[in-house]
Amino acid sequence: MDKNSKIYKIRHSFSHLLAIAILEKFPDAKIVSGPPTETGFFYGVDFGKEKVEEKDLKDFQKKIKKLISQNLAFIKEEKTKEELLEFYKNNEYKKEITEDKAKDGKPLTIYKTGENFFDLCSGPHVEHSADLPIDSFRIDKISGAYFKADEKRPMLTRIYGTAFETKEGLENHDKMLKEAEKRDHRKIGKKLDLFTFSDLVGSGLPLFTPKGTLMRNLITEEIEKIQKNFGWQKVTIPHITKKDLYEKSGHWEKFGDELFKVSGKTDQEFVMKPMNCPHHTQIYSANPRSYKDLPLRFSENGVVYRDEQQGELLGISRVRAITQDDGHSFCTPEQVEEEISNIILIIKKFYTKFEMFDEKNLSVSLSISDPKKPEKYMLEDGLFKKAEEILEKIAIKENLPYKKIEGEAAFYGPKLDFHFKDALGRSWQLATAQLDFSMPKRFDLLYTDSDGQKKNPVMIHRAIAGSLERFMSVMIEHFAGEFPFWLCPVQVSVIPIAENLNQKAKEITKFLEENNFRVESDYSKESFGKKVRSAKEQKIPYFIIVGERDPEGKFTLESRDSEEKLVLTPEEILEKFEKEN
Amino acid sequence: MDKNSKIYKIRHSFSHLLAIAILEKFPDAKIVSGPPTETGFFYGVDFGKEKVEEKDLKDFQKKIKKLISQNLAFIKEEKTKEELLEFYKNNEYKKEITEDKAKDGKPLTIYKTGENFFDLCSGPHVEHSADLPIDSFRIDKISGAYFKADEKRPMLTRIYGTAFETKEGLENHDKMLKEAEKRDHRKIGKKLDLFTFSDLVGSGLPLFTPKGTLMRNLITEEIEKIQKNFGWQKVTIPHITKKDLYEKSGHWEKFGDELFKVSGKTDQEFVMKPMNCPHHTQIYSANPRSYKDLPLRFSENGVVYRDEQQGELLGISRVRAITQDDGHSFCTPEQVEEEISNIILIIKKFYTKFEMFDEKNLSVSLSISDPKKPEKYMLEDGLFKKAEEILEKIAIKENLPYKKIEGEAAFYGPKLDFHFKDALGRSWQLATAQLDFSMPKRFDLLYTDSDGQKKNPVMIHRAIAGSLERFMSVMIEHFAGEFPFWLCPVQVSVIPIAENLNQKAKEITKFLEENNFRVESDYSKESFGKKVRSAKEQKIPYFIIVGERDPEGKFTLESRDSEEKLVLTPEEILEKFEKEN
Repeated sequence: MDKNSKIYKIRHSFSHLLAIAILEKFPDAKIVSGPPTETGFFYGVDFGKEKVEEKDLKDFQKKIKKLISQNLAFIKEEKTKEELLEFYKNNEYKKEITEDKAKDGKPLTIYKTGENFFDLCSGPHVEHSADLPIDSFRIDKISGAYFKADEKRPMLTRIYGTAFETKEGLENHDKMLKEAEKRDHRKIGKKLDLFTFSDLVGSGLPLFTPKGTLMRNLITEEIEKIQKNFGWQKVTIPHITKKDLYEKSGHWEKFGDELFKVSGKTDQEFVMKPMNCPHHTQIYSANPRSYKDLPLRFSENGVVYRDEQQGELLGISRVRAITQDDGHSFCTPEQVEEEISNIILIIKKFYTKFEMFDEKNLSVSLSISDPKKPEKYMLEDGLFKKAEEILEKIAIKENLPYKKIEGEAAFYGPKLDFHFKDALGRSWQLATAQLDFSMPKRFDLLYTDSDGQKKNPVMIHRAIAGSLERFMSVMIEHFAGEFPFWLCPVQVSVIPIAENLNQKAKEITKFLEENNFRVESDYSKESFGKKVRSAKEQKIPYFIIVGERDPEGKFTLESRDSEEKLVLTPEEILEKFEKEN
Repeated sequence: MDKNSKIYKIRHSFSHLLAIAILEKFPDAKIVSGPPTETGFFYGVDFGKEKVEEKDLKDFQKKIKKLISQNLAFIKEEKTKEELLEFYKNNEYKKEITEDKAKDGKPLTIYKTGENFFDLCSGPHVEHSADLPIDSFRIDKISGAYFKADEKRPMLTRIYGTAFETKEGLENHDKMLKEAEKRDHRKIGKKLDLFTFSDLVGSGLPLFTPKGTLMRNLITEEIEKIQKNFGWQKVTIPHITKKDLYEKSGHWEKFGDELFKVSGKTDQEFVMKPMNCPHHTQIYSANPRSYKDLPLRFSENGVVYRDEQQGELLGISRVRAITQDDGHSFCTPEQVEEEISNIILIIKKFYTKFEMFDEKNLSVSLSISDPKKPEKYMLEDGLFKKAEEILEKIAIKENLPYKKIEGEAAFYGPKLDFHFKDALGRSWQLATAQLDFSMPKRFDLLYTDSDGQKKNPVMIHRAIAGSLERFMSVMIEHFAGEFPFWLCPVQVSVIPIAENLNQKAKEITKFLEENNFRVESDYSKESFGKKVRSAKEQKIPYFIIVGERDPEGKFTLESRDSEEKLVLTPEEILEKFEKEN
C-alpha cells in the first residue's frame, strides 16, 4: 500500500482512534503499535491482567464513531528522545521502540489527536477525524502475536479493524470474504474427499485420500512432462539427515531453532530435512564433473519440514510437512541465462494449463538483499550483487512484469518470485527461480572447465508449483472445486436411470476406462435425481445418463459447466474428452 | 540346518575345538557360546582386557588341526546345576546360561573333549575329533555382538570359522563368495551410478542419482500397473506423526525403543513413522463406509524409519529409511480369500517379470505365532488362530510351496512370506501378505453391513517388492548389474565411430527417444574402443554403432548378451526393442 494513498491514511488514522478507545476502557493497557493492513488496521496491546473480549469490540467501535463526530485534528510534532522515554516510562514497549528509532536515526515524531492522546508515529494521517468514512469501517477481530514476532518476547493482543474508503468498498470486501468462505479449501477438500486429518497423526500433517493423491500426482506429472524436455532428471533423497549437512550449508545457523530434531539410540544428531538443496549438492559431488556434463538438473518432490506454531497451521495451505517440486540446476556461468529462461518457460507452460500466466494474473518480484541488513546474506565476493544484476537482465529480456523487493532474497542469493492471482483477486507466490553462487562454494562443488581448470558451478534453485499442498489449496479455492477436466480426480460419472440399464452403464464405463479416463459409476439404489445431485456435489465435469429412450448405441452426455445435453456414441464422447484433456 | 545332519555335528564340534584353542592362548578369556552357522561356526568370547587380533586366528587354526590329529573323543555327561555353577564361578555368562537352562527345564549336559575341556552343550557332536575334515575348514573372522543380542549387555568378541564336509564343498563356497564379492551391490551401484552416500547426510541414508531413481520408479510403476487392475489406489501420508497413533496401534509398546523420536519447539512428541498401516486406518475412518465400498485398497511407497545400529547397515540392503511398496486392503470376512488370492496373483505377475516365480526359486513361509510365547501376539478372541487357518487354506488352494514357521508372525497376525532365490542361490524374503483382525478393532474401524449392522473390516497388509532399497540391492546382485532390458536405466548406447557421423547418431538417438526408449549417446573425443568399453562397463544391453560402412539408412546393433551383430533400419531396431520391453 502506498504510504501517501488516501486509504493508507484512513486506515492508519483509524488505528490511532482505536488506541484512544482501548485506553478509555482499559486505562492500564500498554499500547504497542498500530499499522494499517491490506484490508484495515490493527493495534497491538499488552492488556496486562485484563482480558479483552468480543463484546468489548462493539464499545471500541462506538467510541471511534464518537471520536469521528468530534472532528479531532491529527497534529504532528517533534519530540526529543528524553521527552518520549519520560512519557513512556511505564510502557516498556514504546520505550524500546523509541530507542530503536533513535538508534536508526529516524525522526522522533508524534501525532496528537485530541487533548489527551498522542502516539509515536511517522504518519501520514488524515487531517481531521471527520475525514474518516464513518459507515465503512468496523472493529471485528481479536488475535495474538508476539512482540516483534519473536516467540521469546511477550504475547500481545491485537485488535483488528476493517476499513475501506467507501461503503461500497466495504460491501465488496464482505462479498469477497463470503465467497472465500464458500471456497474454503478445507470444506471443499472434505466434500470432494481429497484429504483428511487425524488427531492421532497430528495437526499440520494431512493424509491424502486416493482422490487427493491422484490430483497431487496429476499436478506433478504435468510438471515432469514439461520439464523432461528441458533435461530435468529426478533424484531421491532421505527425509532425515545429520545436522552436519545444514551446518555446512548455513541453514543451521539461520534456521536451527525452527527445525525438527531427530534422536535415536545413539548420540548422532539428526534433523528433519528443512531444505532439499544441500542433498542435491551431495549427488552432484558424488562424481567428478566436466563442463561437458553441465547443466546437471536434479529435481524431485522433496518433503521439507517446518516446526510451525499450531496457530499458524491452516488446512493443507500451511502444513508441517511440505512437498516441494524442488529442482536444482548446476551450470557454468555462461549457461545461467539460458537455464533461467528455460525455467521461466516451464513456469509459463505449467501456469498456462491453469489459464493464469497472463498480464491480468501474473506479477513477479525480483527479491534482492536488504542493503541495511548485510548480515542476513552471504554477500562475500560481490557475487550476490552480480546475481541480482543477472536476474534483472533476464526479467527485462523475458518481458516479465517485475518489481524489485528489497529484503526478500534468500540468504544465499536473489530470486525471481512468481505471484499469481486467483479468481478472488488474491495473489499467491507460487513459482520461484533463485540464483546462487554461494552454496557451490560452501560444498566445494567443482567441474573441470574446457581450459582444464577446476571451477565452481553456479546453482539455480527453482520450484514450479512450489509447495504442492499450498498449490492444491490455492487451486481448490481458485476453481471452487470445479477443476479443469484434466485435473479432476473423477472426470465422468455414469448414471443408469434404472437397474435394468446397469449392464449398458458398465459397458460405457469400461470403454472409457480402457481409454484412460477416470470414471465413477453409480449403481446404488438411490433415485435418479439423488444420483445426479451427488455427482454435481462432487463437481464431476461430465455425467453420462444411461436412459431407456437413448437411441441404440448412444448416450446422453451432460456437463457441469453448461446446460447443453448431447446424445453421442461412445466414440464421439471419447473424441470430445480427448480434446479437453 | 538339521540338528542330526553330519554337517551340523561337524560345525558344532569345530566350535568346541575353537574354544580349546582360544583358552590355550588366552587362559583368562571367558567363553560364552559356540553354535554352528549356515557356513561354519563361531565362538562368542569375553576376552577381558586382552585384544584378539587377525594374527591370532592362524594360531587357533593350527591348534585345531593339532586337536584333530590327536583324535580326542567327544563325551556327553550329565551335571547338576550346582556342579556347573561351581565350575563356572568365574564365568558369569556360563553361569547365567546354566540358570536359564535350569529354569527352562532343559537337561544340563556337557560335552568333554580331551582331559581339560568341557562345554555346557546339548550336542550332538562327532564321536572323535579325527572325524572332522582337516582340509575343509578355516578360522577366518573376528567381529562383535552383544551378549544375548541385547545392547545393554556386554559386547562379546566372536571368532568365526568356515567349515564344509569336503574340500570341494569349501572350494564351491569360496567360489560363491568370490562371485558374491564381484556382484556386491555397493560396487556395482557405484559403477553404474545408481546411488551414493554422503558423510554429511549420514550412514544408512542413500541418495539416489537420476539413474537409480529411474530404476526405483520403473520397479514401482511395474507394481502399480499390475495392481491397478485389482483395484488398488494410491494414498499419501506424512513421515512424522504423534506417538499417540503408535500407542493406539500397539507399535509403541512393541518397538518404542527402536523408533526415531522427533522434537520441535513445543512439548508435542512426534516419531518418525515406523509403519504405514496405522495411517492407512485413519484414511479408512475419514468417511463412513458401507459393505458396498469394500474392499478398499490403499497403497503407496511409504518410507518407514528404523534406528539401526551403525554396524548393521549395509549399502542399500539395510538402511535407516526404508521405502516399502506398502498396501492395505480393508474388506469383509467373505472377501478375504479372493483378496489374498489376488495379492498372490500380483506377486506372481511381478516376479515373473524377473523370472523368479517358479518352483526353482520360490519358497513360501506361513509365519504363525509361537505357542510358547503367547504374550508376543494379539491373540484375543481366537481370531489370530482363525487367520492362521485361513492363510493355510489359501496356500494349499494356490498350490504354494509353503512351510509353517512358528514364531515368525507379526504381532497383529499371521502372514505368508514369499522368498526368492537369487542367481547365487541365496534366498531373500521379499513379498508378503498378512492377515489382521486386530488392528481394525484397535482403531474402531467400521462398515455398515448389508444387514444394517456395524462391523469391523478385516485388514490385509501386503508388500510386493518389500523394501524398495533391499529389493534393488537383491536385483543388482542377482543380475550382477546386467538388468533385463525393461529395467535398464540406459537401454541403448549410440556410438558414432567418428565425429563426422555425430549427426547420423543424433538422428537415431532422437528417433528412439521419441519412442520412449532410454538412450545415451557418446559424442566424446575418446577412441571408438574406449567408448564401447565404457558402454559395456555400464552394462548397457545394446549399442548402436554408427559407422562409415553401414548401408544407407541402416545401423549396426550389438548386444551385451550375445556376439551377434545386426544391421537394421531404425524401424527394425524399434520393433526389436518393443518386443523386449
